Order: sequence, then C-alpha cells, then structure tokens
Amino acid sequence: MADSPNCDLKSLSPLQLFERVTEQGEKVRALKAGKAPKDEIDAAVRMLLSLKLSYKTTTGQDYQAGLPPKDLVLINNGTTKEEDEDFVDPWTVQTSNAKGVDYDKLIVRFGSSKIDTDLINRIERATGQKPHRFLRRGIFFSHRDMDQILDAYENKKSFYLYTGRGPSSQAMHVGHLIPFIFTKWLQEVFDVPLVIQLTDDEKYLWKDLTTEKAYEYARENAKDIIACGFDINKTFIFSDLDYLGTSTGFYKNIVKVQKHVTFNQVKGIFGFTDSDCIGKISFPAIQAAPSFSSSFPQIFSGKENIQCLIPCAIDQDPYFRMTRDVAPRIGQPKPALLHSVFFPALQGAQTKMSASDPNSSIFLTDTPKQIKTKINKHAFSGGRDTIEEHRKYGGNCDVDVSFMYLTFFLEDDDRLEQLKQAYTSGELLTGELKKVLIETLQPLIAAHQERRKQVTDEMVKQFMTPRKLAFEF
Amino acid sequence: MADSPNCDLKSLSPLQLFERVTEQGEKVRALKAGKAPKDEIDAAVRMLLSLKLSYKTTTGQDYQAGLPPKDLVLINNGTTKEEDEDFVDPWTVQTSNAKGVDYDKLIVRFGSSKIDTDLINRIERATGQKPHRFLRRGIFFSHRDMDQILDAYENKKSFYLYTGRGPSSQAMHVGHLIPFIFTKWLQEVFDVPLVIQLTDDEKYLWKDLTTEKAYEYARENAKDIIACGFDINKTFIFSDLDYLGTSTGFYKNIVKVQKHVTFNQVKGIFGFTDSDCIGKISFPAIQAAPSFSSSFPQIFSGKENIQCLIPCAIDQDPYFRMTRDVAPRIGQPKPALLHSVFFPALQGAQTKMSASDPNSSIFLTDTPKQIKTKINKHAFSGGRDTIEEHRKYGGNCDVDVSFMYLTFFLEDDDRLEQLKQAYTSGELLTGELKKVLIETLQPLIAAHQERRKQVTDEMVKQFMTPRKLAFEF
Repeated sequence: MADSPNCDLKSLSPLQLFERVTEQGEKVRALKAGKAPKDEIDAAVRMLLSLKLSYKTTTGQDYQAGLPPKDLVLINNGTTKEEDEDFVDPWTVQTSNAKGVDYDKLIVRFGSSKIDTDLINRIERATGQKPHRFLRRGIFFSHRDMDQILDAYENKKSFYLYTGRGPSSQAMHVGHLIPFIFTKWLQEVFDVPLVIQLTDDEKYLWKDLTTEKAYEYARENAKDIIACGFDINKTFIFSDLDYLGTSTGFYKNIVKVQKHVTFNQVKGIFGFTDSDCIGKISFPAIQAAPSFSSSFPQIFSGKENIQCLIPCAIDQDPYFRMTRDVAPRIGQPKPALLHSVFFPALQGAQTKMSASDPNSSIFLTDTPKQIKTKINKHAFSGGRDTIEEHRKYGGNCDVDVSFMYLTFFLEDDDRLEQLKQAYTSGELLTGELKKVLIETLQPLIAAHQERRKQVTDEMVKQFMTPRKLAFEF
Repeated sequence: MADSPNCDLKSLSPLQLFERVTEQGEKVRALKAGKAPKDEIDAAVRMLLSLKLSYKTTTGQDYQAGLPPKDLVLINNGTTKEEDEDFVDPWTVQTSNAKGVDYDKLIVRFGSSKIDTDLINRIERATGQKPHRFLRRGIFFSHRDMDQILDAYENKKSFYLYTGRGPSSQAMHVGHLIPFIFTKWLQEVFDVPLVIQLTDDEKYLWKDLTTEKAYEYARENAKDIIACGFDINKTFIFSDLDYLGTSTGFYKNIVKVQKHVTFNQVKGIFGFTDSDCIGKISFPAIQAAPSFSSSFPQIFSGKENIQCLIPCAIDQDPYFRMTRDVAPRIGQPKPALLHSVFFPALQGAQTKMSASDPNSSIFLTDTPKQIKTKINKHAFSGGRDTIEEHRKYGGNCDVDVSFMYLTFFLEDDDRLEQLKQAYTSGELLTGELKKVLIETLQPLIAAHQERRKQVTDEMVKQFMTPRKLAFEF
C-alpha cells in the first residue's frame, strides 16, 4: 500500500508536479517584484524551466497556469474538476478545506456506499459486540458489499481479512495504526483469518531503495504490526519480495489480473504515464491478488473462492475498484471493502499524516517529551487568537487537529462529547485540549513501544511463514 | 519465447492487422469490379470497417493504404521503412524475398556482430571440437559478446547457457528443435550448465488459454526438449507459472528489470500499445531475468554474476537487447547471445515455420507418410516448370525449401555440396531432391519419437525440480 512520495521529481504525481511548477512560478514573480539579485532570479527561472520540463515529460501536456493535469480529471471518473475539488489517489491526498476531504462527495465519486446506522446496528447484532469507536464515529465511513459479508456470516459462511502496508521507512506514525487497530477488532469479533501484505516491491519500484532495504523495512514494520496484538495462529504477514517466490498460487493470480487490465485502464485509474516503469504499471495486480484466497494455498488448504474483506484507507480504493472489476472475469468473488478517512497531518486536515514529513507526524518511536512538544508546537488549533475571544466565541472542533486525534484515540464517548462541548463553548482552552490529547497518546504509544520490545525476530519469522491457520473452511 | 499469433484479431501485430485491412480492401474492390451480389459486397465492406476499427484501436492510428503502422518504424530502430524491408519481431517474421530475411541487413539494424570464420575457428580451438554444422553453414550467424565468453572460457572462467520456448501448443515442429540441437552441442563442447525457460505465463497472456492448459503444454513440450538428449545433471527446465512461486531469486530480478524499463521503451521495442494488458507490458522482464544467475540460487548455490550465453532465434533479440541495456544498471553482467536464422515455412522462406499453420509445418509427431506427403505437396521448389527446362537451366537452391531444410539437417558437408551442384546444374530433379530430404527427416523424427517415448513423467519432474547441478562455480 502506498505512502506519500519522496522529493525526487520523478516520483511526484502529476498533481504534485503541477503544484511545484505553480509555486516556483510564484517564487519567480516574487523575486522579480522584490528586485532580487539577478543571479538569484536566474537560478529560480532555471528551476522553473526544469520543473516545467518534468511536468511535460510526466504528463505529456504543457504546463498551463490554473489548469491541473488531465490525469486528475480521469481519476475523478471523468467529472469536470471543480476549483476546490479534493484530490485523492494512492499517493496523494489533498484538499483546500481545513475540515479535510469531503467524504460524502468521495462516496459519490468512487461509487461506494456510506456506512450508515443500519449497517452499524447490523454489525452489532451479528457479532454481539459494541461497534468499534471507528464505526461509531464515522472513521470507517464507506464500504462495498459489507451487507453481503454479513448475509453470508449470518448463514455461517466465513470470510478472511486482507489489509496491508507499504514499508517505505522504518518509522511508522500513529496514523498507520488506524487500519491495524480496526482490523484487529474485526478479526476478534468475527473470528476470521487475516493476511497482511507488506508491499516492499512497490516501495522498491517507487522509491530510491534497494530490494534489501525495502525488505528490511518490511520486517521492521512487521514488528510494529505484530505489536498491535494480532493472534499468531490466525494471522499471516508477508513481504511481496519474499512471498512471491514461495507461493504456488500468488503469481498465478497476479498474471490472471494482469491479463485482464490494460495500460489504458491503469492510466485512467492511477494516472500512470508512458514514462513510468513497467514495474509500476503492472504493480496494481500485485496488490489485487491477495483479494483471492487461492493466493494462499497453505492457509486455506487450497480452497478457492473464500470471500475477502479489506479494511483500508479510502485512498487505496482505486486498487480494489480495479480488483472488483476483474474478479468475475477470472472466476473469483469480488472482495468487500471497509474504507477509513485519512489520518490528518498535525498541521491540519488538508493533507494526511506523512512519515516523510517528520513535523507532520507523531511516530511510534517518539518519546513522551517529543509527543508533547510536537502537539504543542504543530497541532493545528481551532481555537481563537486570544483567550478572551476564545472564552467569548469558543473553539472550532471541525478544524482542530487535537480534537480530531481524540476522536481516533479516546475510547470514552461521553468524555469526548464533554470535551467537544467545552471547547466549542470556550470553556476549554486550546492548551487544555492539547493536554488531554498528550495524556491520551503518551501512554498509548508507550504501551505500543513496550509490546514492540517483546516482538522477537523469531516471532516475526513465525508470522511471516506461510502455514495453515487455525481455521477450517 | 514467442510463437506466431492465433487468428483472434486482438492477438495480431500492428503489421499483421495492416495487412489484413489491405487484403480486405482488395477483396472489396475485386467484388465490386466483378459485380458480385450486393449482400456479398456489403458483408465484405462491414468486415473491412471492422478491421479498420481494430487497426485503429491497436495502433492508435487511422489506417492509410500503403503506410504501414508506425510501430514498424520504431522496431526498425527509427530508420525509414523501405517498401521491401523485412519485418522481424518476437511475434512476426515477414519478408517479400523468397530467399528469406536479409540477415546481413538485420545485423546492421539490430547492431549485433556477424559470426565470421575467425570466431568459428576460435570456438574450434577453444573446445577442440569441429564446429557444429549450424556454425559451419551460417545458421547461427550473429552474436553479441561471444568473444568475451571465449576470453573468459580460455581463462578457465565458466558460464551458463539459457534458452527457452513458448509452449503455445502440444505440437512442436522440426524448426523448434534448432535452438535445442545447437544448445545441446554447446553444453557438450563447453561442459556448462543450462537453464530452459518455458514461458507458459506468456502464452496465457497472449493466447486464449487457461493457466492450467498453458502449464500442461509446458510439461508436454518439456518432453520433446528432454528427448533432444540433455544431461539431467546439467540441465534445469522450468515453467514460469511454476518456478516463479518456488524461487527466492527470480522475482527479485524481475522487479529489478521492471524498475529500469519504461512503457515508452517496451512500446518502442515490442510495439505494445495502450490497449495491451499490463501483463504483456511487464512480461519482457520475465524473459530477461533468467539471464542473471541470481535467478537460480539453487543451481549456483547463490553465486551471482555468472556470465550467461543465450542461443536463440534472432526474433528473440529484442528481449535481450533490453536485458543488456538494463544489466549494468542493476549490477549484473550483460548476457552474451548467439542468433540463429529462422526455420522457413514449407511454402517458402518469406515467413518462418509456424505451428498454428499445419500446412507450413512438419511436426515432431508426424508419421513417415505425413512427412513424405507434406514435403511432396507443400515444400516450395526452386526447380523449373518442366523437366526439359530444369535439365537445361537447373534449379535454384537459394529459394528451394527442401534444399534449405537439408542445410539444417544433413550432417555431411560433401554430400550437401554435391546435391547443391547437381540441383543447380539441372542434373538432380526437384522430386529427387525432395526424396533426399524425406529420407533424411524420416529417421531423424522417428528417432526423436522413440526417445520421447522413453521420457517418463518422473523424468520431467526431475528436470523441472530446482536443484544444484553438477558444477562448481
């Protein structure tokens, strides 16, 4: 699964490149207006020309101010781009709205279904468990075919879970935990097997990494994932670079998907261009294949057509829209999906938390002091400029990043509601709200670090060994 | 490795489609000129429009009479297309010249080197063996870096051989044996290990086949290959569909190649279009990867950077030009190559023998009677129209298919020279020359069939099991 790109121009999405050109154009204008030294202006112009060239190479289009690249329109399913439309693909999440992406619009655009109260109630009835806070609070907000999963489950037909992570560095941040926290809950309440894909091959293809380094990151990330508390008897974690060469079923499914998806299609879905390497172009099939149980002959004793449910952030949906399109054509069931919102950057919900920007992220390795400093220094506040104004008009929870984080991590619904009211009324100051967040996150992360220390290399090896899991299908 | 395409329009190369449109246009004109019934003309016009549409979908260009598709020009390395230029890519071999492809021109166009007398003498000195008739007679006529292989060999540095086959059907024809006969000789005189790739994944991607059927063909073809007499202790045969899931090194090399080749490049080399599936687009990396010894950790005990030599027909060169371009960028040695001419169709050297056209081929399963009938009925003759004229002016060995086949299969140089002189002088009639060919091929094929009968499933399994071969590196 994808993370945000590094600084290499080649790895930028067409939209990111577009924005870099625009920024650089503004910089040149500012330098000229400010009568900056000639050599400084010249250097900025040279950079601008070089960026425009990269833009043209990547998109096949000339840069035109105010006209974002055509791929963007394609990703938006052909609808005309509105000035303030959110941009969401597996590599980039961007919106001009401080409240974050408009998820209702995204549901319409992606053609998925909203997770409504009826569905949440049905999950509660089926499992006999109180719905997870991520469901209660709309953090997992969208789905595809979850009703079919429940139909089958109620008829004693089981399924398996599939999620993943792109191991782009050793450092995982708190946002990376969201799908795993929820997946662990799903595994427990439904009692089903789970496969977790670490796309080290993807990271090798997209980043300036060796295969060895990407595999090392995969193993390090596996430790953080294991520290979430997954049951070793019910969970298989795999690195693509490793597992592809040890599974008799995985490659067969990959090549089947690859036969049924054209370059035109991946160009439309992912914005690939003719200058992209053939590895990137064919990679979507590798993220698709674990949606089919025959990719795991050891786990399912060769049984095929076991239904799959994929919890993931909504930016991964393009991969699975493609997968669902191909599935019936290769005689496989379509995977069902549960989509989460993005975990916002400390600076605000306009973009998601990104490990490649340390200031935007709270890492799982941060000390209590670092957590405190980062939140106090960087967490975007919905509070007023002065205490007086704050007391008078109150804060805005819709854009306050500390409050957003509390909706992710504070289990107690009543407490959260109290905080919301107190902050909105002006009774609670920004500093006080931040303090609650710090006191919530510090012990959570300390406990994670404690559990991670217990994860031995031997355990990683066991989790990553293809084997039968404790289920009969 | 690729074979000729089936009749499905989608599987036709741009050039083949171009020719189908041209033919159909001529048919429509002929029908109109001949005042054929209206419904017959209408049907032919509908077919013409449908072919033009397929052409446009495949090439992205409108059909223009007399202007072959642009891809052709790309494959010709950007040189301007001459009216009578030969067309050679992994799927199509076509020339207007009855003598066959102009191989000297091909060497210039592909940028390879001619196998000259000096090189042949050097191989003889290095191995202490009389050069194989395929070398003596220019059937293996072109190479890349064979001198470096010999430099290293003379300094006691060994190498390994890699060749392959695309298992598109159970039926192999005599032409398919050429690379294997020569590879077996190379293996014996140099005493080196050999890997043989069966690209069942390629055949699944290109043809209307299931993965199971493609794998079955791979195993059947393996029997014919084993029947050529390869040493089980020195030879590993593998199906991609099978081996990719059992090798820890193969996929890593594939993904490395895939990172270093863009869609633009494979478009230029192989003529792929945006409508091609992503499996075809990334496949060249799968044919490239066995050029690197690290794809076979079991065989070479994990040793990397062992030099590879690839004997193959020249139409496979585009794959290995690409491989040689990538090799240094992924820290691997460039594979060396030995290129053979094509094995001509019975109807003449304008095109190669193709298993999908039974009349063009002598199959390894043909009975002595079938061999006789096919040669007598279909083998294009360089003889004159009447016995009188033949006696007077003599036959033309340059276009006579029976004589061409004898250059491939008749071991005795003196006998071949006698036949040539007798045929050219008119002393030998076409029927007599055909008789010599029939009497040469019948026992060869009967002996092959006898050896193939001895090949058990257990032997196939052994050949196809990854294992250490009888070599130390």
